[in-house]
Amino acid sequence: MKDPVPSSTVARLPRYLRCLSDMEAREANCSSEELATAAGVNSAQVRKDFSYLGAYGTRGVGYDIADLSRQIRNVLGLTRTYPVVVIGAGNLGNALTNYGGFRAWGFKVVALVDIDPLKIGEPVDGLTIEPMQDLVRIVEDHSIEIGIIATPAAAAQSTVNRLADAGVTSILNLAPTILKAPDGVQIRRVDLSTELGILAFHRNV
Amino acid sequence: MKDPVPSSTVARLPRYLRCLSDMEAREANCSSEELATAAGVNSAQVRKDFSYLGAYGTRGVGYDIADLSRQIRNVLGLTRTYPVVVIGAGNLGNALTNYGGFRAWGFKVVALVDIDPLKIGEPVDGLTIEPMQDLVRIVEDHSIEIGIIATPAAAAQSTVNRLADAGVTSILNLAPTILKAPDGVQIRRVDLSTELGILAFHRNV
Repeated sequence: MKDPVPSSTVARLPRYLRCLSDMEAREANCSSEELATAAGVNSAQVRKDFSYLGAYGTRGVGYDIADLSRQIRNVLGLTRTYPVVVIGAGNLGNALTNYGGFRAWGFKVVALVDIDPLKIGEPVDGLTIEPMQDLVRIVEDHSIEIGIIATPAAAAQSTVNRLADAGVTSILNLAPTILKAPDGVQIRRVDLSTELGILAFHRNV
Repeated sequence: MKDPVPSSTVARLPRYLRCLSDMEAREANCSSEELATAAGVNSAQVRKDFSYLGAYGTRGVGYDIADLSRQIRNVLGLTRTYPVVVIGAGNLGNALTNYGGFRAWGFKVVALVDIDPLKIGEPVDGLTIEPMQDLVRIVEDHSIEIGIIATPAAAAQSTVNRLADAGVTSILNLAPTILKAPDGVQIRRVDLSTELGILAFHRNV
């Protein structure tokens, strides 16, 4: 690919990929209309997004689902397994450790870390909760680049800093607070209150 | 307000609100630059967004934080408590029940529901896990309009349908699958794989 894929398109690609993997069990091809309905966007958007990938489909046949999935995976870099460390072994961290959505995408939680001495050594879905002071070794042992923060809000910024020091460059923040990204580190945030806030707004329109 | 607030602005308002509530403890006023830095957008965007709310700030002083927060809450309809039901009492559902981010925004989990007879009656953070067959009564008793789906993917669509039948009109889906919204119901989805997928992409650029 010569032209960069716009970030708004990138943001939709994982959604298309999930729809395609749902469809793949049932059929070999799909139209832009079908995919648009499944993904909740309009079909012109679908065609435009895929044009950035050099995927145009065949008139009367549509897109080859397996081909298109492969192209999306290539663009997203989902062609290998990404080891992930989860920080915070509360209910949320434990839920992430066996979150069904990760495995199919190549994300694998390989370590679950906490600061609470009472939790260290406890088993969670095939892992054993490990101590925060071993973070540098854990990240190195598993070549981890992605960390997920599932700590309380008050502990989240110091956790980001420790992850960065350990060499983690991509962080998903689930703690209900806004964090500063150290140089060379990208943070994405999932804020459930924000999502509920948007729902509440649309109720009131 | 006469003009509707654009949905892209609405999507940023909860983020501003969180930044403002962080600032409120320290100061009475803030500049658009300060808020822009905290929220991770540019300051022209901040000023434009607030112009839709009729909030322009005072030259040399900035915005009154308490006033601005109140205006945002009004637009978002966050002026009262919203009772919420969580479906699925696994790790994720239990984590949501005591998620620190909800309470400050007026969202209150008032019921946690599961289909597993072994879980019914178990205590979770001051609630007792209730059976799915009581959903209609639960929604009615608490006047619930918002539901959160924390079930496995395979159970999510039937859960949406049951929530809709019970009268719930706003649903936040945390199950890793795309769902069809029944008429009159809006669904928002939080897909952690998608978020990780976007992180993975940006690593590879």
